[in-house]
Amino acid sequence: MDLYSGYINNLIEELSALPGIGTKSAQRLAFYLINQPKESVERLASAMTEAKAQVRYCSECFTLTDRDKCPICANENRDHRTIMVVENSRDLAAYEKTGKYNGVYHVLHGAISPMLGIGPGDIRLKELIERLQHDVDEVIIATNSSLEGETTAMYISKLIKPSGIKVSRIASGVPVGGDLENIDEMTLLRALEGRVEL
Amino acid sequence: MDLYSGYINNLIEELSALPGIGTKSAQRLAFYLINQPKESVERLASAMTEAKAQVRYCSECFTLTDRDKCPICANENRDHRTIMVVENSRDLAAYEKTGKYNGVYHVLHGAISPMLGIGPGDIRLKELIERLQHDVDEVIIATNSSLEGETTAMYISKLIKPSGIKVSRIASGVPVGGDLENIDEMTLLRALEGRVEL
Repeated sequence: MDLYSGYINNLIEELSALPGIGTKSAQRLAFYLINQPKESVERLASAMTEAKAQVRYCSECFTLTDRDKCPICANENRDHRTIMVVENSRDLAAYEKTGKYNGVYHVLHGAISPMLGIGPGDIRLKELIERLQHDVDEVIIATNSSLEGETTAMYISKLIKPSGIKVSRIASGVPVGGDLENIDEMTLLRALEGRVEL
Repeated sequence: MDLYSGYINNLIEELSALPGIGTKSAQRLAFYLINQPKESVERLASAMTEAKAQVRYCSECFTLTDRDKCPICANENRDHRTIMVVENSRDLAAYEKTGKYNGVYHVLHGAISPMLGIGPGDIRLKELIERLQHDVDEVIIATNSSLEGETTAMYISKLIKPSGIKVSRIASGVPVGGDLENIDEMTLLRALEGRVEL
């Protein structure tokens, strides 16, 4: 579309490369930005470049942080002998929001996926094993309940079990408030298999 | 969420201020950006600031462009005596894509909306009237088929008619390929009222 200007086209193109943003949304966003005050646009642009420049991985759990150790790993009051393994920092945030978990985390930054060619060496698994050299009581695997997440969970549990450290997996089943009729068969089966006596 | 870092939180906040982007999408986008190469992030950031800095209004039709006159107004082969009035540059682009309209445009940058407190003085209406001092045969009003669009169309037609210039309104009716049963009553009524003899 040469109707706009090179600058608008370029912005639309850059925006539509973002995940979940199609050409229509990119157009809408581009025009929105152009109509915003110069300062707002510059604030957004520098928020991006600064976050990219400053954010790194925590040297212990590999979550994204701007310090050497993330606030959770640096917190002496957390139980450093319990490690919850998650696929990414958003999953960590989701568990933190429950406010009920007092252990620490380990962020894999991905999951094993033979389909996508992602092997155990492509995620932060070696780093997890290294952490187990220190005193650890339990590793809770909280990877997603997807094929990749399950494969990763299985792989990690086989890797750790011989060391004698307790390995557990978060429960899978019907979500709280979930309406049975809207839940897929796999979840229903899992909920049945994982039933607990009352 | 102080789990992330100030930089991530700041980026999430800036992103979620964009239209159509909620907290979840903003989080997803922020993590995506942080995991991108530094160059990609800087390219996106500068696409924004450059578009904002370089893009201005066409001195004739007020569409967004990076030149004094947009390519359409600067084109001698277009019919400068026919002006299509649209609400914004995206609507202009939509009509340009049909490839069948050879006149020029006038971009209002909004529509009259008493509800939102947008009056005739808040859109580029004065500038349209000024353009009518030159030779103009027809003004085609192509504002949206919404309450605001219709109000604006009515207002403009009343304003121009006394001058003797032909004023028309794009037809409203059932969209091509539209399934009658899925179309709202107002549209069906409009299609009936606007029926043409075969």
